[in-house]
Amino acid sequence: MRTHSTKNTKETTMTIQLYELCGADENLVFSPHCWKARMALAHKGLSYESIPVPFTKVAGVEDGEGRTVPVLRDGDDIIEDSYKIALHLEGKYPDAPSLFNGEGGKALTRFVINWSQTQVHPVVYRLVLMQIYKNIAPADQVHFRQTREKRFNMTLEEYSASYGASATDLHNALIPLESMLAAQPYIGGETPLFADYVVFGAIQWCRVFKGQSLMKKDSKASVWFENVAQLHDGAGNKLQFAA
Amino acid sequence: MRTHSTKNTKETTMTIQLYELCGADENLVFSPHCWKARMALAHKGLSYESIPVPFTKVAGVEDGEGRTVPVLRDGDDIIEDSYKIALHLEGKYPDAPSLFNGEGGKALTRFVINWSQTQVHPVVYRLVLMQIYKNIAPADQVHFRQTREKRFNMTLEEYSASYGASATDLHNALIPLESMLAAQPYIGGETPLFADYVVFGAIQWCRVFKGQSLMKKDSKASVWFENVAQLHDGAGNKLQFAA
Repeated sequence: MRTHSTKNTKETTMTIQLYELCGADENLVFSPHCWKARMALAHKGLSYESIPVPFTKVAGVEDGEGRTVPVLRDGDDIIEDSYKIALHLEGKYPDAPSLFNGEGGKALTRFVINWSQTQVHPVVYRLVLMQIYKNIAPADQVHFRQTREKRFNMTLEEYSASYGASATDLHNALIPLESMLAAQPYIGGETPLFADYVVFGAIQWCRVFKGQSLMKKDSKASVWFENVAQLHDGAGNKLQFAA
Repeated sequence: MRTHSTKNTKETTMTIQLYELCGADENLVFSPHCWKARMALAHKGLSYESIPVPFTKVAGVEDGEGRTVPVLRDGDDIIEDSYKIALHLEGKYPDAPSLFNGEGGKALTRFVINWSQTQVHPVVYRLVLMQIYKNIAPADQVHFRQTREKRFNMTLEEYSASYGASATDLHNALIPLESMLAAQPYIGGETPLFADYVVFGAIQWCRVFKGQSLMKKDSKASVWFENVAQLHDGAGNKLQFAA
């Protein structure tokens, strides 16, 4: 377990724990959804304990059944799903900087989530699939291979060979973001909101495995990514790269 | 000039005018951007005069140079661009239903605009290009052909033959919307916001020329489109179809 804190944190009792997917190396936190939750906590200036969870232990987190990570424990509250975690933090810590700037922001964030998940995630997934496999523990590799090969109806190696993606695919997927950044510096406007972390998480997933974001050099989106990574004492730059 | 009013309108002095792109038939209002503005006015319950403007007259609207439509005149205010029009209405008519539900909603709407413009508009454009040409007045046809052929570096007919789009392309472009609608009925959440009209406008553009939205039957997105069209006394269903 590792403790993350930021300068803004009120050092009250340390009750927040974040269960995060990890690799064979417990410090290898790569899940885009976990990065969204990390950034949301950093945005709110909250300290938390990171509890690394390998694939095969995810379902049973906090005595759950069929859970997905991230899972946040905050006192007596247990929250699953990064968007719900952000909503929880917004409600419980209203005096810290807002993650949504109002109800409209909450609602429209769902559109950004679904865009990211249907347009950006599949590209990154295809980019990093074999590296996920190589960087998880043996028992997790068995689980990962079985579940994914059943879904793909082919081996991981066949899938990766047939459906590989390129940095150009990533750049193309990010065209709406690139276009928007001509008008404002963050998805949240003049300052970042949870919607920014949603897209940041997807690209961070790529960065952890590739050692770099693979974004188009000097593009507005790559500048935006670097800016988001540097927020909150560089929370997005405190990462362990994959081997 | 035609007057649009809704039940909710306070019948004060009629000062709002909306300059909208029109076809050879002045009642043929097809521009997605003009539909966004129409829906924003209906959302606010405001009456307005629609002033049809053919392609060749757009640049000089309200003594402007190089203008684009829609242009809104509201008393002494002249506003160009549908998003700026929505911001203007939000600021000037704060007691009418909100178009953004807060600052976060305003900012994230820009993402939806840029997504729609880069992912949905190009598909609809390719679907309706020749029908735009056929439905505008002769002088506008000359202008339209010249400007577009210069941009494409080929004839309208060649472009249309090479870059035609299908209903499947439209459905694929709308996947993020379809995905999001599993979680909430509007982009705005439980009720529609300007972001809904942004996407509605793009599809309405298609509908005006094709007689139907071309959306996938029984998809969540097609149900959403019909719901949006019926709002505000069916403002989105008061349309003239192209010949």
